[in-house]
Amino acid sequence: MKQVDLNTFSNPTFTPGAGMFKRVIWYLINAIFFDSPALLPYSFKRSILRAFGAKIADGVVIKPNVNIKYPWKLSVGENSWIGEGVWIDNLDVVDIGSNACLSQGALILSGNHDYSSTSFDLIVKPIRIEDGAWIGAKAIVTQGVVFGSNSVLAVGSVASSDIDPNGIYRGNPAQKIKDRVLR
Amino acid sequence: MKQVDLNTFSNPTFTPGAGMFKRVIWYLINAIFFDSPALLPYSFKRSILRAFGAKIADGVVIKPNVNIKYPWKLSVGENSWIGEGVWIDNLDVVDIGSNACLSQGALILSGNHDYSSTSFDLIVKPIRIEDGAWIGAKAIVTQGVVFGSNSVLAVGSVASSDIDPNGIYRGNPAQKIKDRVLR
Amino acid sequence: MKQVDLNTFSNPTFTPGAGMFKRVIWYLINAIFFDSPALLPYSFKRSILRAFGAKIADGVVIKPNVNIKYPWKLSVGENSWIGEGVWIDNLDVVDIGSNACLSQGALILSGNHDYSSTSFDLIVKPIRIEDGAWIGAKAIVTQGVVFGSNSVLAVGSVASSDIDPNGIYRGNPAQKIKDRVLR
Repeated sequence: MKQVDLNTFSNPTFTPGAGMFKRVIWYLINAIFFDSPALLPYSFKRSILRAFGAKIADGVVIKPNVNIKYPWKLSVGENSWIGEGVWIDNLDVVDIGSNACLSQGALILSGNHDYSSTSFDLIVKPIRIEDGAWIGAKAIVTQGVVFGSNSVLAVGSVASSDIDPNGIYRGNPAQKIKDRVLR
Repeated sequence: MKQVDLNTFSNPTFTPGAGMFKRVIWYLINAIFFDSPALLPYSFKRSILRAFGAKIADGVVIKPNVNIKYPWKLSVGENSWIGEGVWIDNLDVVDIGSNACLSQGALILSGNHDYSSTSFDLIVKPIRIEDGAWIGAKAIVTQGVVFGSNSVLAVGSVASSDIDPNGIYRGNPAQKIKDRVLR
Repeated sequence: MKQVDLNTFSNPTFTPGAGMFKRVIWYLINAIFFDSPALLPYSFKRSILRAFGAKIADGVVIKPNVNIKYPWKLSVGENSWIGEGVWIDNLDVVDIGSNACLSQGALILSGNHDYSSTSFDLIVKPIRIEDGAWIGAKAIVTQGVVFGSNSVLAVGSVASSDIDPNGIYRGNPAQKIKDRVLR
């Protein structure tokens, strides 16, 4: 019978997108200034992220204890909020639109594994979170998802497939429970 | 078509309940003594919380890595336990009764947003967790909830509406699965 | 009417398995080298865990920010992975097989309480996670569970009873949604 053998693990399609030196420097900066209680002006955090290749528009809010894997694979539009304790584990590109809110403790997870392969191959896919979306506290968006404009993912829910615009979604996996109607 | 515009965000009904200076001092104390692995006597932690306006009864246990937003909006009754990694994000009053247990990683979340408004107005509501309640590990209680006496919220579940006393609740949103009968 | 009284709490069946001095030293080492962003060779982390009584096979990967309660109650087989932010809260023995993967933020939780007793007695039970299993990101495995070989627990799901081998499980509580067939 076939068995998983992590000794044969490979990730042929994944590239980190930066050299070892840059990755280690970012890891340290992330640990000291981002994934920490450090109180720093948002403008300063935006500048650091941009210096590492992120596309960060003006007005983006980045609260404390935010863990970002690779800023060079991150894009965030105007006035969007990255809440306290958010984890952007972006092995692949995470593209967040304008006026989106990632609430406290949310996880954006762009890596997965091929569980049919005994070598457990890494699968990475980009994630797009469109304008006006709201990812609730401790909610999770997984690899490959397009999260539609203005939609809401309720607290503690998991979006593991595409989310249509203008809906309220809840559960694991998240299902649409009603429309979001803006006054 | 209407669009969310976080540049127009306002929170007319919310007040932090303390001046900027006190909030920053508390933020630092929280980061150093509470939301950290620091090993301190519970009596010392209770005293600090009381000095910042919390009502903390005797016998309250506060484990490491506990994140408390505003102690002046917190009340905890006799012998209750705040487990490791608990996050009390109390933008509004959180009132915990006696002999209640918040297990590791639980989140008490008193803030929300009006997702019908393009300005994404903040909504805060008090939370009351009554005597003998047990909030399981990594479970979440949201704004405005009255969590009834002796009820149990199972691990990883989300209470987003009122919880009757003496029941066991599970899921997202949490539903009653059976009675809690004390011998 | 009966009421919970945490002042009468007892845990007659639980023993920490090490003296106070060893527990405090481990607590500090865990906080500094394991549950922190420290970048250390996996071989070094394996050696520390073994020095504290853990059975850790060769090739075991231990990412940063991993919180381990009692290494002397932990066993991990060859080439298994402990992901970033994993919390092994092993008040009782946690036995992880070979080629298993605990993804980021997973929680292994071997403690519970008797919610029928007014003294809220602690209940601890061992957990066994068999070869080739995959516990997804932010998923939770609770006390007493035997998690069958090669099975998968989807992101954010909760396994609160035994899991058969070779299945994909999702939800809270986790239910089997399909077979895992290895090519």
